Amino acid sequence: MNTAPNEIAGRLRIVLVGTQHPGNIGSAARAIKTMGLSRLVLVAPEKAPNAESYALAAGADDVLGAAETHASLADAVADCHFVLGCTARSRRVALDELMPAEAAARAVARATEGGEVALVFGRERTGLDNDELQLCHAAVHIPANPEYSSLNLAMAVQVLSYELRLALLGLGGRAHTVMPTTVEATPGAPADPPASHAQLEGFFGQLGDVLDLIDFHKGRVPESAMRKLRRLFLRADLDEREVRLLRGILADVERTARLGPKTV
Amino acid sequence: MNTAPNEIAGRLRIVLVGTQHPGNIGSAARAIKTMGLSRLVLVAPEKAPNAESYALAAGADDVLGAAETHASLADAVADCHFVLGCTARSRRVALDELMPAEAAARAVARATEGGEVALVFGRERTGLDNDELQLCHAAVHIPANPEYSSLNLAMAVQVLSYELRLALLGLGGRAHTVMPTTVEATPGAPADPPASHAQLEGFFGQLGDVLDLIDFHKGRVPESAMRKLRRLFLRADLDEREVRLLRGILADVERTARLGPKTV
Repeated sequence: MNTAPNEIAGRLRIVLVGTQHPGNIGSAARAIKTMGLSRLVLVAPEKAPNAESYALAAGADDVLGAAETHASLADAVADCHFVLGCTARSRRVALDELMPAEAAARAVARATEGGEVALVFGRERTGLDNDELQLCHAAVHIPANPEYSSLNLAMAVQVLSYELRLALLGLGGRAHTVMPTTVEATPGAPADPPASHAQLEGFFGQLGDVLDLIDFHKGRVPESAMRKLRRLFLRADLDEREVRLLRGILADVERTARLGPKTV
Repeated sequence: MNTAPNEIAGRLRIVLVGTQHPGNIGSAARAIKTMGLSRLVLVAPEKAPNAESYALAAGADDVLGAAETHASLADAVADCHFVLGCTARSRRVALDELMPAEAAARAVARATEGGEVALVFGRERTGLDNDELQLCHAAVHIPANPEYSSLNLAMAVQVLSYELRLALLGLGGRAHTVMPTTVEATPGAPADPPASHAQLEGFFGQLGDVLDLIDFHKGRVPESAMRKLRRLFLRADLDEREVRLLRGILADVERTARLGPKTV
């Protein structure tokens, strides 16, 4: 790898959503530091980090002390180009579901290109809700024992951080798969910078407005169409220029819908 | 894999030597059960499993309850054919030092041949002593952050158990990961048949008409925008249903452009 692993690691953030036990936040801080990561982000934890968190963080109190807290996952990943949601196998949202090594390879590939990457972990009992999964580009699944799949939150963080470290060190071995899958994933690989989460959400918001304006739903619930469209466009891995192009088309649709065609 | 993974897993034991914190014994029991393992062996723990151990074992109290205890590592591995010692990098004893994935691959290979295999973890503070390492056929090293390599004992058990599970599922062999990850990578992918070339061209034709209708090009040559749009949508690997969805939107744009919005 050409760029220093530390520099790339700095673009990888571990996001814990709605954590219920402060102890797990401390254990997660320790887990990520042992794997050479340092960016911990908390989203609306039930309890802020406390003495128990710091006790379990052990020598990783620096990582814990530096953890940002956000009110929503959308805020926490607003500047991210690639967001991975860790899930127990779930069909609620049809996201591509990656094995940990594959997810780590893609995450490190994106960070190596200069992208900001988030690995998102949900609540101990209930995980990530559907709205939160909608913000993810893909899901990561640890292939646990189907009869007893309840990994402790910090354990899941440890396993994924371990795979990230292997990928950072070029030891993913699955390193063989890094190149192919990355290339396969984006045949006409965008040269322009990948669109940020905020840019994509801006586009999806305008798309929703246009669908209303042209009365696309005709009484049906908008959610199902929007979910399919989000999935389709997230899969396309849009770059900034492509988002501008699509938003330019939507703007002309809005103008035309209001004024009628210039000349037909 | 020909033999049932469970049968092979039954020949893999996790051995904890001289554990100092009973809580770690419980967390280790949970960690190995989540990865489909069940044989926990204790060697002279400082404290026998207690209420804290069972609390942390959560649903793995069966594994914890079934854990044998031995007075020495030699007794605990007396019937083993392959013994791996987990170490922070150590040159005190000249053992082959394996990466976790390679260690797991060898362990599962031996168990698949019918051999009894032990993965041995030392004391939280001091690890395995030289006499104990002498009993090991090879050492396993988790490539942790050199500036902060102190994985919690149960975390190290989780990482190695995870690699054992990948190997049991045939997903560990770095070389073999291509097939599985490809398969794993796309359960969330479109279930509908992929769009045919003709269906895609029909969509692109309609898209071109709509761009003219809404005067998107404004005198610019249409080719460059259409080329970018084709690339973007081809990259998304559309299925038939998605093409119908997009064409439905275009049809409503055409209707609205001609008639003006139904109600704004």
